Amino acid sequence: MNERYFEDLKVGDRFKSSTYKVTQEGIISFAREFDPQSFHLDPAKAKQTIFEGLIASGWHTAAITMRLLVQMLNLAEGPIGLGVVELRWPSPVRPGDSLEVETEIVELRKSRSKPNYGVIRLHNVTKNQRAEIVQTMTAAALALRRKLQA
Amino acid sequence: MNERYFEDLKVGDRFKSSTYKVTQEGIISFAREFDPQSFHLDPAKAKQTIFEGLIASGWHTAAITMRLLVQMLNLAEGPIGLGVVELRWPSPVRPGDSLEVETEIVELRKSRSKPNYGVIRLHNVTKNQRAEIVQTMTAAALALRRKLQA
Repeated sequence: MNERYFEDLKVGDRFKSSTYKVTQEGIISFAREFDPQSFHLDPAKAKQTIFEGLIASGWHTAAITMRLLVQMLNLAEGPIGLGVVELRWPSPVRPGDSLEVETEIVELRKSRSKPNYGVIRLHNVTKNQRAEIVQTMTAAALALRRKLQA
Repeated sequence: MNERYFEDLKVGDRFKSSTYKVTQEGIISFAREFDPQSFHLDPAKAKQTIFEGLIASGWHTAAITMRLLVQMLNLAEGPIGLGVVELRWPSPVRPGDSLEVETEIVELRKSRSKPNYGVIRLHNVTKNQRAEIVQTMTAAALALRRKLQA
């Protein structure tokens, strides 16, 4: 598929990602490096916690969502993240879950400071294989403009 | 240091983390798994982009911040992330940077649905070795209460 530019997007456009299979090894390895808490690290200890089993770090879910987003949007130069205005984890992610992301473009405007780029605002919902929402996020990013690249 | 409980925190409390050294290998390895874009993956291609060199994924910065937060707060059972209301990356993180996090407790309340937990609201600022702000984040988390654990 050709790379997309800012001009290829319209407010209301919706995209659906491929799926990402979450493994116990992946959950533990991410947690060991970035979120060393027993409910992310140790299946036996996790059973004694409020989650009653191993769950992925919310930051792992966010990182997986980013991976699915990058592939799905396929923007020239990629989306350059500006920030996030809302990020929630309504349900936990567990070993064996398959995640996918649905995105809606909610705002598009030219960048005031960077004439080669436009600002896109996205609402992203990450769901598991039972269609339970594991993450919602509204984010802003820069996307390269086509016209000035000719 | 003893683990902290909800009751050990006061609004206005401030904490400062240890430091985390960011390496080029770490940036590339995170990006390969979660944010495969040329400015995070390839030092030569990154020079041709708006960033003029390799930078870390914002989600990598967020994950490193979480690691520093978990160690610094040392909460019994750890902080259970509920969500983030604001997350920004004002300056990029580059290979060799040393990051540290400053946190302020901005709100504390009992959880309505989970009597064993309190809700804490934190404002976190992640800085590099030149005191440039690389991330700001306001987040909410659950912390275990001591009194009901006796």
